[in-house]
Amino acid sequence: MQRLIWSVLIAFAVSLALGPVVIPWLKKLKMGSNEYELGPATHKVKQGTPIMGGLIFIGAMALVPLALHKPGTTWRFLPATVVCTLGFGAIGFVDDFLKIHNKRSLGLTPRQKMIPQIVLAIGLSIWAYRSVGPALIVPFFGREWNLGWAYIPVMVFILVGVVNSANLLDGCDGLLAGCSMIDFAALALILLLIGQAQSGEDAEATYNLVLVCGAGAGALLGFLRYNSHPAMVFMGDSGSFAIGGAIAAVALCTRLSLLLPIICLAMMSSSLSDIIQVTYFKATHGKRVFKMAPLQHHFELSGMPETRVVNMYRTVTALLCLLAILGFTA
Amino acid sequence: MQRLIWSVLIAFAVSLALGPVVIPWLKKLKMGSNEYELGPATHKVKQGTPIMGGLIFIGAMALVPLALHKPGTTWRFLPATVVCTLGFGAIGFVDDFLKIHNKRSLGLTPRQKMIPQIVLAIGLSIWAYRSVGPALIVPFFGREWNLGWAYIPVMVFILVGVVNSANLLDGCDGLLAGCSMIDFAALALILLLIGQAQSGEDAEATYNLVLVCGAGAGALLGFLRYNSHPAMVFMGDSGSFAIGGAIAAVALCTRLSLLLPIICLAMMSSSLSDIIQVTYFKATHGKRVFKMAPLQHHFELSGMPETRVVNMYRTVTALLCLLAILGFTA
Repeated sequence: MQRLIWSVLIAFAVSLALGPVVIPWLKKLKMGSNEYELGPATHKVKQGTPIMGGLIFIGAMALVPLALHKPGTTWRFLPATVVCTLGFGAIGFVDDFLKIHNKRSLGLTPRQKMIPQIVLAIGLSIWAYRSVGPALIVPFFGREWNLGWAYIPVMVFILVGVVNSANLLDGCDGLLAGCSMIDFAALALILLLIGQAQSGEDAEATYNLVLVCGAGAGALLGFLRYNSHPAMVFMGDSGSFAIGGAIAAVALCTRLSLLLPIICLAMMSSSLSDIIQVTYFKATHGKRVFKMAPLQHHFELSGMPETRVVNMYRTVTALLCLLAILGFTA
Repeated sequence: MQRLIWSVLIAFAVSLALGPVVIPWLKKLKMGSNEYELGPATHKVKQGTPIMGGLIFIGAMALVPLALHKPGTTWRFLPATVVCTLGFGAIGFVDDFLKIHNKRSLGLTPRQKMIPQIVLAIGLSIWAYRSVGPALIVPFFGREWNLGWAYIPVMVFILVGVVNSANLLDGCDGLLAGCSMIDFAALALILLLIGQAQSGEDAEATYNLVLVCGAGAGALLGFLRYNSHPAMVFMGDSGSFAIGGAIAAVALCTRLSLLLPIICLAMMSSSLSDIIQVTYFKATHGKRVFKMAPLQHHFELSGMPETRVVNMYRTVTALLCLLAILGFTA
């Protein structure tokens, strides 16, 4: 518990300290946002806010747990979380960089984004299959679900799905950062509860992942200093991919992937609404289900102020996280 | 832990459900805010937003713990938290009501507000002296500090101080509600940790206070649906007095009053800045330390957007709460 708190505090401090270094540098490089032409009209004022702000928190999120883990305890899961956070973050970084370099709102093509993601996800899933095993914890039912060989394609789907869902949830000030900060905090508490029931190396490995969650929450709390409304910087794909990667990696290592549809419902709602919108639009040759997809922009266009949408998403995330914790308490 | 989560969820649901009942009713009664003439100019747009929104959460905050406490466990502390929350809330309610009735920004005179507060505080302090005893826990040092007879005046000062500090922190959308929600959450965790080391009736009594904290956090989370920027309703003195009363009551019962300067620093900074400003103004015949007191308005007048000020206060409160929790972990 003490290490968890230090992990939060130190990651927060690193994020906070990097803000005044990274933001002016991004501005100097003209790393300004080119607002997507089809986005909400109220977002036009965001034109010029620097992107790639993910650089502020990715380092702390990935590396603080390495610095703080209890010496001599197992490194079983730490390489996976670092690779997943930095790996997906790097793909996002390339995308952000091209957006700026080419002075257009779109960076990599969908295919160029997807192939390295799938390669990374396959590698991680094979590693997890061999070292964690193909059984998932079924929350609230106290049982396990052995997927056998199907584990690998399912995990690839979940990893890529979470990363891209996080990416789609980004787009309002403090939305993705706030919701995923709550997710990390909830995962930290759940893993503390799980770790109490374990012993030896298993408990050590779980507690080291608690530090990963703490660092994630702390780093994002620091980033929110710069990203909360009115945002001085956006995290960009570098940030959203890294967040998705970190959350998915923790779930992968702890066999908690079935928790993700609960605690990450905000992200899921963005990708699902996008899929529904596009499918319906094609099927009906031009009709729409939502005023705009992803879902958060639908609420904005329905007249809800951006700050209130963000508050609603955070509140729903907090409630769902409490429900998830309920599944792990006696 | 399970009861704690249910306490949060049910208090949230009650608050959320009362919003659409209370807000239109307040509007109908013309319970609109008369913005204080000397407040920040940017707050003029808030003119007309209903006050007395505290009615949305006071009931849930005070009564949900009674409904959820484990049957047969001791009621030792619950009457004190209920009396403190509803009692101070009632004083605030009278003040709000007079503000509206007299169509002026000031309700009760300072003396009219202070006398019932002091009477209530003396009653509670005498009760606490007799049933909890005059020793306070000194956090981080693992010792106790026996105040003897000085306990009663010190507790009266703390109770009245916290209630009025909460009142002074109110004034930005989601500021007091957000910070005190974090305080309640932190107190809940601290009391869970304390309760684990206790047994029998002591543990029961502590766990029942955990429910009080959970209900406080949940009720405020629900209220934030209506109070986050741009606010549809303000809590008014009814709300801020009740929050101060509830936090002070929990600290009183658990002998944790020395934690308040840490976790309630946001509130304290408002009252201290007010005292400093007035004292300096009188001493120098017209000079000011802050652009405006309480402190949060100083930040606003220094050019920081309201939402960013609120985020900063919440972040600092969260960090201080983590530090406080650190004092109770092994």
